[in-house]
Amino acid sequence: MQYLSLFSVKYIGDQIAQIDIDRSRRKNVPEIVLGSHKKLNDLILILNEILKNNGYVLASKIKPSMMDKILKYYGGKKLKIDRGINSTSLLIYDNETSLPKDRGGKVGIICAGTSDIGIAEEARLATRTMGCTCHLAYDVGIAGIHRLLNSIVKMTAEKVDSIVTVAGMEGALPAVTASLVNVPVIGVPVSVGYGYGSNGRGALASMLQTCSFGLVAVNIDNGVGGGIFASMIANKGRS
Amino acid sequence: MQYLSLFSVKYIGDQIAQIDIDRSRRKNVPEIVLGSHKKLNDLILILNEILKNNGYVLASKIKPSMMDKILKYYGGKKLKIDRGINSTSLLIYDNETSLPKDRGGKVGIICAGTSDIGIAEEARLATRTMGCTCHLAYDVGIAGIHRLLNSIVKMTAEKVDSIVTVAGMEGALPAVTASLVNVPVIGVPVSVGYGYGSNGRGALASMLQTCSFGLVAVNIDNGVGGGIFASMIANKGRS
Amino acid sequence: MQYLSLFSVKYIGDQIAQIDIDRSRRKNVPEIVLGSHKKLNDLILILNEILKNNGYVLASKIKPSMMDKILKYYGGKKLKIDRGINSTSLLIYDNETSLPKDRGGKVGIICAGTSDIGIAEEARLATRTMGCTCHLAYDVGIAGIHRLLNSIVKMTAEKVDSIVTVAGMEGALPAVTASLVNVPVIGVPVSVGYGYGSNGRGALASMLQTCSFGLVAVNIDNGVGGGIFASMIANKGRS
Amino acid sequence: MQYLSLFSVKYIGDQIAQIDIDRSRRKNVPEIVLGSHKKLNDLILILNEILKNNGYVLASKIKPSMMDKILKYYGGKKLKIDRGINSTSLLIYDNETSLPKDRGGKVGIICAGTSDIGIAEEARLATRTMGCTCHLAYDVGIAGIHRLLNSIVKMTAEKVDSIVTVAGMEGALPAVTASLVNVPVIGVPVSVGYGYGSNGRGALASMLQTCSFGLVAVNIDNGVGGGIFASMIANKGRS
Amino acid sequence: MQYLSLFSVKYIGDQIAQIDIDRSRRKNVPEIVLGSHKKLNDLILILNEILKNNGYVLASKIKPSMMDKILKYYGGKKLKIDRGINSTSLLIYDNETSLPKDRGGKVGIICAGTSDIGIAEEARLATRTMGCTCHLAYDVGIAGIHRLLNSIVKMTAEKVDSIVTVAGMEGALPAVTASLVNVPVIGVPVSVGYGYGSNGRGALASMLQTCSFGLVAVNIDNGVGGGIFASMIANKGRS
Amino acid sequence: MQYLSLFSVKYIGDQIAQIDIDRSRRKNVPEIVLGSHKKLNDLILILNEILKNNGYVLASKIKPSMMDKILKYYGGKKLKIDRGINSTSLLIYDNETSLPKDRGGKVGIICAGTSDIGIAEEARLATRTMGCTCHLAYDVGIAGIHRLLNSIVKMTAEKVDSIVTVAGMEGALPAVTASLVNVPVIGVPVSVGYGYGSNGRGALASMLQTCSFGLVAVNIDNGVGGGIFASMIANKGRS
Amino acid sequence: MQYLSLFSVKYIGDQIAQIDIDRSRRKNVPEIVLGSHKKLNDLILILNEILKNNGYVLASKIKPSMMDKILKYYGGKKLKIDRGINSTSLLIYDNETSLPKDRGGKVGIICAGTSDIGIAEEARLATRTMGCTCHLAYDVGIAGIHRLLNSIVKMTAEKVDSIVTVAGMEGALPAVTASLVNVPVIGVPVSVGYGYGSNGRGALASMLQTCSFGLVAVNIDNGVGGGIFASMIANKGRS
Amino acid sequence: MQYLSLFSVKYIGDQIAQIDIDRSRRKNVPEIVLGSHKKLNDLILILNEILKNNGYVLASKIKPSMMDKILKYYGGKKLKIDRGINSTSLLIYDNETSLPKDRGGKVGIICAGTSDIGIAEEARLATRTMGCTCHLAYDVGIAGIHRLLNSIVKMTAEKVDSIVTVAGMEGALPAVTASLVNVPVIGVPVSVGYGYGSNGRGALASMLQTCSFGLVAVNIDNGVGGGIFASMIANKGRS
Repeated sequence: MQYLSLFSVKYIGDQIAQIDIDRSRRKNVPEIVLGSHKKLNDLILILNEILKNNGYVLASKIKPSMMDKILKYYGGKKLKIDRGINSTSLLIYDNETSLPKDRGGKVGIICAGTSDIGIAEEARLATRTMGCTCHLAYDVGIAGIHRLLNSIVKMTAEKVDSIVTVAGMEGALPAVTASLVNVPVIGVPVSVGYGYGSNGRGALASMLQTCSFGLVAVNIDNGVGGGIFASMIANKGRS
Repeated sequence: MQYLSLFSVKYIGDQIAQIDIDRSRRKNVPEIVLGSHKKLNDLILILNEILKNNGYVLASKIKPSMMDKILKYYGGKKLKIDRGINSTSLLIYDNETSLPKDRGGKVGIICAGTSDIGIAEEARLATRTMGCTCHLAYDVGIAGIHRLLNSIVKMTAEKVDSIVTVAGMEGALPAVTASLVNVPVIGVPVSVGYGYGSNGRGALASMLQTCSFGLVAVNIDNGVGGGIFASMIANKGRS
Repeated sequence: MQYLSLFSVKYIGDQIAQIDIDRSRRKNVPEIVLGSHKKLNDLILILNEILKNNGYVLASKIKPSMMDKILKYYGGKKLKIDRGINSTSLLIYDNETSLPKDRGGKVGIICAGTSDIGIAEEARLATRTMGCTCHLAYDVGIAGIHRLLNSIVKMTAEKVDSIVTVAGMEGALPAVTASLVNVPVIGVPVSVGYGYGSNGRGALASMLQTCSFGLVAVNIDNGVGGGIFASMIANKGRS
Repeated sequence: MQYLSLFSVKYIGDQIAQIDIDRSRRKNVPEIVLGSHKKLNDLILILNEILKNNGYVLASKIKPSMMDKILKYYGGKKLKIDRGINSTSLLIYDNETSLPKDRGGKVGIICAGTSDIGIAEEARLATRTMGCTCHLAYDVGIAGIHRLLNSIVKMTAEKVDSIVTVAGMEGALPAVTASLVNVPVIGVPVSVGYGYGSNGRGALASMLQTCSFGLVAVNIDNGVGGGIFASMIANKGRS
Repeated sequence: MQYLSLFSVKYIGDQIAQIDIDRSRRKNVPEIVLGSHKKLNDLILILNEILKNNGYVLASKIKPSMMDKILKYYGGKKLKIDRGINSTSLLIYDNETSLPKDRGGKVGIICAGTSDIGIAEEARLATRTMGCTCHLAYDVGIAGIHRLLNSIVKMTAEKVDSIVTVAGMEGALPAVTASLVNVPVIGVPVSVGYGYGSNGRGALASMLQTCSFGLVAVNIDNGVGGGIFASMIANKGRS
Repeated sequence: MQYLSLFSVKYIGDQIAQIDIDRSRRKNVPEIVLGSHKKLNDLILILNEILKNNGYVLASKIKPSMMDKILKYYGGKKLKIDRGINSTSLLIYDNETSLPKDRGGKVGIICAGTSDIGIAEEARLATRTMGCTCHLAYDVGIAGIHRLLNSIVKMTAEKVDSIVTVAGMEGALPAVTASLVNVPVIGVPVSVGYGYGSNGRGALASMLQTCSFGLVAVNIDNGVGGGIFASMIANKGRS
Repeated sequence: MQYLSLFSVKYIGDQIAQIDIDRSRRKNVPEIVLGSHKKLNDLILILNEILKNNGYVLASKIKPSMMDKILKYYGGKKLKIDRGINSTSLLIYDNETSLPKDRGGKVGIICAGTSDIGIAEEARLATRTMGCTCHLAYDVGIAGIHRLLNSIVKMTAEKVDSIVTVAGMEGALPAVTASLVNVPVIGVPVSVGYGYGSNGRGALASMLQTCSFGLVAVNIDNGVGGGIFASMIANKGRS
Repeated sequence: MQYLSLFSVKYIGDQIAQIDIDRSRRKNVPEIVLGSHKKLNDLILILNEILKNNGYVLASKIKPSMMDKILKYYGGKKLKIDRGINSTSLLIYDNETSLPKDRGGKVGIICAGTSDIGIAEEARLATRTMGCTCHLAYDVGIAGIHRLLNSIVKMTAEKVDSIVTVAGMEGALPAVTASLVNVPVIGVPVSVGYGYGSNGRGALASMLQTCSFGLVAVNIDNGVGGGIFASMIANKGRS
């Protein structure tokens, strides 16, 4: 099993976390930090460690109260921060050159409504950590389907390698998109809406129940996961 | 409360059933028989009673094994039977003139896939008992959205008063339809599909979560209910 | 596909939203703004844009903390505001003449308990944007069924074109209503109650499981959707 | 703990079952046999043992295929059998005098539709084992509410001690009943209906979510449990 | 339908509520006010109206923040208030003689753990409005089953007419109780516990799935409903 | 990672299955075959391979139609078969000496009702493959709690090392047992019962929600898993 | 919208189905037929139409009873049929040259247990219609994790472009796989297992809840969807 | 029933709680206090009573706001407090010698991610009250499986008697662990994660659906229950 011997690990914070420092080499995906259940001090400790190693770090699902403290902590330093619009994620990096270089992969990101933009922006931040460029179309849900069709025509012309579709409510956007394009589509359900099928469950069901081929799903609100996956496809065959 | 004194009831079958013989007068909707949990003899007893009174009767959700016996029973008589395609419903009537006369109402019925036709036909049978005419478009789901757009253009030209949309799987058809037309749309989820959101639950969620106005839902597989409601709208203002 | 060329769109707020400015013409339904997941500034930007175009705008599902700020923002202006009782919605308009003119359609709105009034009022605001008049009966649930029967007798006398029934808890009101009237009934479940079937799920099930024909449902708490749909029926054949 | 020393037990069938022969004395409720998961031989062994001790026995939830075999087995013997209409239960007894004597308690049993009769009859059989008389009203659901109101007026005149209400679908019957009478009402949901809220879940929710006081529920399809409980109330103060 | 003519109704608060003032006469159950979704002013308006008519009123499910304001409002008046321990309910009355007189009915109330006491106290307050006396046993869950057995022996000796059992978590207390006593038992699930079966769903399932006869359930946390029902049984045959 | 090099695997049936032949050595638990989704030929191929290696094999969840064929196949051979009562499992072995020798561990197995015996027997068969002896108490559910208390007193006297408790319906037996004994208790929910909490979900919730310490759960109907785990405890410190 | 004018459609079977004959050109994915809810005659009509156009056709989810009839129908013809092992799908083609030519894409397919093979084979059939080659590893679930690690090492050496992982039960295989490889992984949950999380729901949750990046999911049992998506990735950059 | 006479009980706080003071003697498990639904004063009353009797007490699930007050209350006294890392539990004791003495039992505790540490620490505190020592491995989830394998090799070398595995998200850690070790493994799902399978439900399903033998589960977040059970195993055969 020499395969396993490739991996090594770095303990930090008195065994609070073991950073998988070989992940980037092993998977071509950077270590990304899930902020939702971490304490402020632990989170900063981990972010700093990764920043020091890689020159950039992406943190997601940061609670609003903690977000302010983190922005304040990093705001005074010589760092660049891409917050995304309405997003709970945060890309921190030393400068543009410390981010992965653009390898030519193109990812389309489409979201259905204004309320879905935060998750779509999570996906955009993730593609930056993978060295891809993005083509965005926001607020183009099926309630005004001409908006969507226009966007798809444009993205097709731009030759995107894969498309991330972000939608809450009835979540019909990804299936309609997948029926019209010939690149892989990744659906990201969003936890908006109320009543039956709320919290993104109706949208998730729409994506899993699709009659269209070429559509897969990540979990509700997992914009980062969708962006990473789409980038892995876009990066295929590029170096 | 003289309102309640309008109603009368007819007991049949040794108190097995009380037929609401004033329903047609009270609600402008005929008595319709749900076959699913009834015994064969009870069902025939009830159908005959209504046939005798009204000259026609609609029965729905008849189990396959019972359907054969009912068709055999009525097949030998001087009656007309409209079975629908792939449907578990049955419209039995003496002859064309015994059905409610056409009052000019027009109902569009759209279904997404071949598997949804049985429920769409249930809706068609229901519109016949309401004196409406139908305009059908079957197998026009969003996996090939051009099929749907063509159908909607036609129905709009035909000036339908309301549209019944029948869809299983991701159930996006009703929302897409409702975003494009200016008549009321009734969504009927269908219990096809497997896995998460199966049995029509994903489709129901899509219809209830819709961002489009002008769309309501009946329960999963309730084609009759959808057809009756669409006909009530179509009959409005007609006599 | 000349049908699609009818539509146009207006981008605002640096691509935060694309307002579907042809919706009113295409669907005879005004653009309505869902406030629940929008940021304050984005929301006001969108409301102002629609107000400027149409002279009125309806916003729904505004969080209490945001409601205060919006009322404060618009309070100082020469505008009229209809807040509804206990409602999270808001109809803002220049003056009575800027609202759609009354075309003669009549919508009945019935709610079961005091706790359902907020959602019933949402429906009432929606009918105002559709140019209909309302007949209201509040707190007439089945726990004291004589209250309900009285109200139905009155509404029938007033010749309403359709009825919106709003109910939480066991949600039996819509089915009882639909069994007694001959106009289409739209059920709106409300997220009151606790325990099994809470959050409006029991009420939704009651409406979808109904034995009465002539009853459909919109999603839990979707008073606006119910009001718009009832108005589309009421407006049928009127100009 | 001399309380516990009151109980004794009889082992039968090589430890397959331990019959709680003191239950009748301890709880004033007879031992009732749930047939659903028992093997034919085990079931007959247990029924015979109780028949021998008590002179009667009630078995419920017998699968159709097993029902035929049991009826055949007992049909040839000098026993009386009350099967109920459309029921899966069976009351077997030596003769009328071997059943508990009538102590004067009166139980009303109301069911909503033809499909609910089997479960209502289960309740009727249970009241016989408790020495009560029944007053029945079948197929009186709220889709034709005048039928229900008539039945309640009659039952009130007959001075029933408690009422069992049996309903599937939207299950509104129990709540409407409880709002009108001043005796305890026991709701029994029935597993009829399809789609959302099917299998009696909508009906159960309606009963638990009721706004009316004086209504409780047993589990879906538990007609026997409802009948026994209603009889315990009816027997109160009688000897 | 002279039955319905018995009822009358009193409108208060500009149609905010219609008080069912005949309920007490019709059902022998007082009007009880559900506080959970009412506004403070509406709630006080309704409470005062009932207090004026009856001399006492029971309000349940009052939110903590509102509770303080209500206690402050009524604290300064010449009224008596029974708050219950850890309860969200409130019995307000002029003085002891204004409460319904004791008719001799006895209700046992058992709760499983310290966390269930608030709901058990709701039941106790309800029995006071029904003119019954209570016998209490708190914190006697099955984790130390000797505590429960002792309590049941005592209650049996006190000849209670019915027992309310209040339990969260695994909710086994009601079934164990029902297996040992010969009076009707009403189960009240409580929304304590976390993880699978939390919010009282496991407890509700235990009560509905019981193998013991003589046990019914009300909805989760519905202590008032359980207390009223138990009192209706206890009052049977008393005047 | 020399740890992993301990394991080896045997391919059989043209890559249909890879038997984990080191499992017994690695985990002190034999390879057990889940029959539920296997084809007859594949199943026999796998059973024979293990029989040849070990001299015994346990197969579980065999469908009735397949069970007959397997019994017929092995019936003619010089093999011993322990089928269990009402069980879908099967222990096949060459002769008593080919089974693991008794190491002195004692496992108690308690089941609530006659319907739970099949799963309890699964647990018994599993303990035989682990070299333990069993002490059984069947049909001792809480509906007659004296039966259970008697059994626990006996098992305590017999000094069992652990207890498997098997229960469907309300599943209160495991929690009551765990409250009284000082050895680890493993709960096995059983998929009996109907209505809310059916299919063992109520029983599972009861076990997970328990207030008693010393109780864990395996999945619904997983009698084999419960028996193996109890045996691992019983075998601790024995060789 | 000249984009939409690209599509055309072929009606067959008297409007039973509208075949989307441009799908292959538009999406580079062939038309695949879902057999589950179709009637035998309709299904054969559709299969023949596609066979005539394309020279091959893939049908999935064919019920066992219908499978026999279809095999009989096509068995007598000069056609090749790839049924897969334990699969409900069927690839029918004229001869090897009529299938899409191999474009060099490589897809790994891993399944956890013997019971998952049928769905894994569905994925394999789908890759054949996309012109990819497969590398298979069956029965390598995590209960014997060395089997899985061996397989991953091999697949990595073979330079597969993407991996389809098929797993029921706890569904941990896809997450473990995704943590070790650097190509996109598609998870396909399988509806095996019983109890809590059965029918593939536990497996689906595992895949959506994964901590590993590079993993997406299709719906439960959707082997075809997983195979098509993996092939789209594998075909990227190939012609 | 002399067995039951062993138990006695101590009432405190005016019948607010009945402390089961024989539990430790009867079950070899200390009385542990669930803090989640208790009032501050009640909680301190109970803690003090147990502290006085035993010299130590463990309280779990204390809400953050209450935790501060409790720490303040006990902080000024001559007591030792073990809070755990990120935990809502609290072990209070007079001094080291007042805790149960170490009897030699060894428990391994493994957790998957940083977010699971609080629950793992709950388990650690529980083992201290049982007189066991712990071996910890935190943040070793399967996303970097080499970390887990290293930890298991170490724990095996340390000869732990049982292992508590704590995991949220996909919860694959316990199954992977159980497949590799030969001691009993107790799975504790953790309520982290979002979307489908969130709140620990996916993790619970993974543990119950496991293909590995030797794994059981306690409820979501029940770290104390897992620690106590593992300690009961570890203590077996020790005195």
